[in-house]
Amino acid sequence: MTSIDLNADLGEGFGRWQLTDDERLLSVVTSANVACGFHAGDAATMRRVCEQAAERGVRIGAQVSYRDLAGFGRRAMDVPPAELAAEVTYQIGALEVFARAAGTRVSYVKPHGALYNRVVHDEEQAGAVVDGVLLADATLPVLGLPGSRLLDLAAKAGLPAVTEAFADRAYTEQGTLVPRGQDGAVVTDPDAVVERSVGLAHSGVVTSRSGVPVEVRARSLCLHGDTSGAVELARRVRARLEESGVRVEAFV
Amino acid sequence: MTSIDLNADLGEGFGRWQLTDDERLLSVVTSANVACGFHAGDAATMRRVCEQAAERGVRIGAQVSYRDLAGFGRRAMDVPPAELAAEVTYQIGALEVFARAAGTRVSYVKPHGALYNRVVHDEEQAGAVVDGVLLADATLPVLGLPGSRLLDLAAKAGLPAVTEAFADRAYTEQGTLVPRGQDGAVVTDPDAVVERSVGLAHSGVVTSRSGVPVEVRARSLCLHGDTSGAVELARRVRARLEESGVRVEAFV
Amino acid sequence: MTSIDLNADLGEGFGRWQLTDDERLLSVVTSANVACGFHAGDAATMRRVCEQAAERGVRIGAQVSYRDLAGFGRRAMDVPPAELAAEVTYQIGALEVFARAAGTRVSYVKPHGALYNRVVHDEEQAGAVVDGVLLADATLPVLGLPGSRLLDLAAKAGLPAVTEAFADRAYTEQGTLVPRGQDGAVVTDPDAVVERSVGLAHSGVVTSRSGVPVEVRARSLCLHGDTSGAVELARRVRARLEESGVRVEAFV
Amino acid sequence: MTSIDLNADLGEGFGRWQLTDDERLLSVVTSANVACGFHAGDAATMRRVCEQAAERGVRIGAQVSYRDLAGFGRRAMDVPPAELAAEVTYQIGALEVFARAAGTRVSYVKPHGALYNRVVHDEEQAGAVVDGVLLADATLPVLGLPGSRLLDLAAKAGLPAVTEAFADRAYTEQGTLVPRGQDGAVVTDPDAVVERSVGLAHSGVVTSRSGVPVEVRARSLCLHGDTSGAVELARRVRARLEESGVRVEAFV
Repeated sequence: MTSIDLNADLGEGFGRWQLTDDERLLSVVTSANVACGFHAGDAATMRRVCEQAAERGVRIGAQVSYRDLAGFGRRAMDVPPAELAAEVTYQIGALEVFARAAGTRVSYVKPHGALYNRVVHDEEQAGAVVDGVLLADATLPVLGLPGSRLLDLAAKAGLPAVTEAFADRAYTEQGTLVPRGQDGAVVTDPDAVVERSVGLAHSGVVTSRSGVPVEVRARSLCLHGDTSGAVELARRVRARLEESGVRVEAFV
Repeated sequence: MTSIDLNADLGEGFGRWQLTDDERLLSVVTSANVACGFHAGDAATMRRVCEQAAERGVRIGAQVSYRDLAGFGRRAMDVPPAELAAEVTYQIGALEVFARAAGTRVSYVKPHGALYNRVVHDEEQAGAVVDGVLLADATLPVLGLPGSRLLDLAAKAGLPAVTEAFADRAYTEQGTLVPRGQDGAVVTDPDAVVERSVGLAHSGVVTSRSGVPVEVRARSLCLHGDTSGAVELARRVRARLEESGVRVEAFV
Repeated sequence: MTSIDLNADLGEGFGRWQLTDDERLLSVVTSANVACGFHAGDAATMRRVCEQAAERGVRIGAQVSYRDLAGFGRRAMDVPPAELAAEVTYQIGALEVFARAAGTRVSYVKPHGALYNRVVHDEEQAGAVVDGVLLADATLPVLGLPGSRLLDLAAKAGLPAVTEAFADRAYTEQGTLVPRGQDGAVVTDPDAVVERSVGLAHSGVVTSRSGVPVEVRARSLCLHGDTSGAVELARRVRARLEESGVRVEAFV
Repeated sequence: MTSIDLNADLGEGFGRWQLTDDERLLSVVTSANVACGFHAGDAATMRRVCEQAAERGVRIGAQVSYRDLAGFGRRAMDVPPAELAAEVTYQIGALEVFARAAGTRVSYVKPHGALYNRVVHDEEQAGAVVDGVLLADATLPVLGLPGSRLLDLAAKAGLPAVTEAFADRAYTEQGTLVPRGQDGAVVTDPDAVVERSVGLAHSGVVTSRSGVPVEVRARSLCLHGDTSGAVELARRVRARLEESGVRVEAFV
């Protein structure tokens, strides 16, 4: 039986500001990428989300970011590798204590925003993220794009490298994401997103923007939850996956 | 044989800014109160100080603070208890990962600056700090003033409550600190500081501002290291304690 | 003909996070308390809100706060007076440049959150806010509670002291606000809020919690806009005021 | 008679942390690049430095930076142009109010650190900085490297573009700086720095790393002041310039 993990970003408020609908998302996903305070996520929110995730058996991942509250971690930064590694470790540690207090643990690491995009190609920063993870826990899985420098270096370092795909993003014939900003980069039709999710889970195949089937092997699907419609769509994706015989379960 | 712990604040730089002479202090103290990023202490500094402390066998303590880089944690804040507890836990977790990476662990918690002063009397905030420590690790010692609400509540919660004294501060006849700002609150004569250190360690007695011997039982002496002269004085204190037959060793 | 100013907090998002419905509020109020970056308000938001306010002829006020993004400026802080004064000046200057670029100017200053509450009674901090305003512009009106230390010291320093009232807060027989947390502190019935607004504007009288009419002279009414219902209520208040013959206009 | 401006970075402490020796530097330079709170510079420091500069007749420049206290503005960031422009404007406004309070004004703008380096070549960010300056004051001079995109775009926008040179940096035969990190990028011999300063001021010529005289026309020389030796060297440069008949004076 085929199985797939569903992950989404959670706990992305900060103090007075709320963003993600954490409660509803936790009833859909199997893995929660929890913000650790650098792009979002105050300590009280981290505590609450860890407790809620633990109650529901949802895995907790450290969603590590550049230190950039004003830019929500979406602005690439040239952080020297030793600093970046230490900042990754810091964030993992800060989340781990709340996960442990909730009776569970941090089960994986996923970079956020501009850092996520940067470590697809940037050898130095990808290496720094891996170093930061190793310093925290040399057995922690790393979640990212297939073919990214991050996953390559993580695997070389002995860390489990877990691939993810996006049902709402267009793919090239080479199986890479069509960059945001290009026409058709985002799949906006909910039915198409649901159908692509099933395809990705069952066969690891998705139709490229040009109409060709391409292979995209992914152990996890990334869902979005920053709008009310997005949570509803995530719910539909999960329901449809289960109806189609896919077991929705965490990768770890 | 009498023994005493010597503690000091370390790692109180932030990014480009340096403050404490960590290397030299680590050759003097047995317990290092390491800043955790809220009043000072970037991630790379925390990593470095933990490694250096571990190498020398110096115990690592989490020096937890209000979130206040601009004020260096010296401005009292009315933080709601649940937020304060979570922020304490966050800081302990962030330091713990570096301590563990260096082959050791966080061995105690000591509040910094305005939080330290506040929890002497403030029941609610003292309770929040204790809650934050319990959430992180229900066996962690808490370091503070004898008779403070913090130590009372820590003890009630089952946490080891460790007392400290200040050889360079004047005491009242009741054994409490003469508040800063009052005449003679700080003992500035280095010889007097050395002599008082020996008295505190051997007999738990110090001469009050009014000239009366008062009992101040402390398992640890707090030294200062934010000036070059302060480090030199700390060195003298340690040397004199050892000459006088006191074993200088961590309390845990 | 009676006139009244309507003021509300605007621009209280930060980066990715939104809070206040600035567009809709600007069609209701005559004075906009714009966040200046210390409790909320990134630079791009400040620019946008100033432009929108200028277009509509809404006055721009500097909503100055403690430096506390994580606590949204709602946690009282013991900031030394010289620091607090300089921080107030800094915020006014940062907003002034956007107001000027939009063809207008900062027309008044109103403290936010915990600072607003603190300067009702705290002589030292009230004096520091006044000093900060004087440093920026010795002719700037200050908006606050009647009888507050802030307005008294502002008036003594030659700054126009402008009083405000809250139609959705209960008053004591002495004309002071019933503290939040006490029973009935907030008036939740929309019809009552509308009626009290009219009473405050026309006669400067409001019914106290105990049922006695009390005098509350205010040149401005503070409206809230952080929920969709709140904006709708603000709109009703304005409509009813105008129907009842009150001229709704800025105080400056 | 030849004249030259001497500029240096000042006010680069933050709260408890000090960095630049502002008092001594202000007796050497004619233009002070004052940190505005984004990479360094708390409000009280900004106030003090503006007062000290005004007393000595030293011009005040806004040293604008990426928002990055942890990295001291030394980490390049991909800030979207509209955000960057607004952040530049914000910083100028925040400094302007202190300059005005001290009886003077912000006389120019100079980007700091990574932003300074980025706008040498980055069209988009250089344009954003110019937009930010224009929004604040369409007559403000911009200080930067000859040939930089920043100065080109500033000049096109009608802003005075002021060139600067570095007596302690090696130049290529094309008159550009040898990048830091390359051999010999920094001139460490104090006598050479003094001599090069005189050459730059008198003839606009400096010897390239390869030994060839190259023309580097600069209206200002940038001095460093973050070490005790640096201030002493700056003093020697000024003295030698004056002895050699150069008038040391601000460019505006």
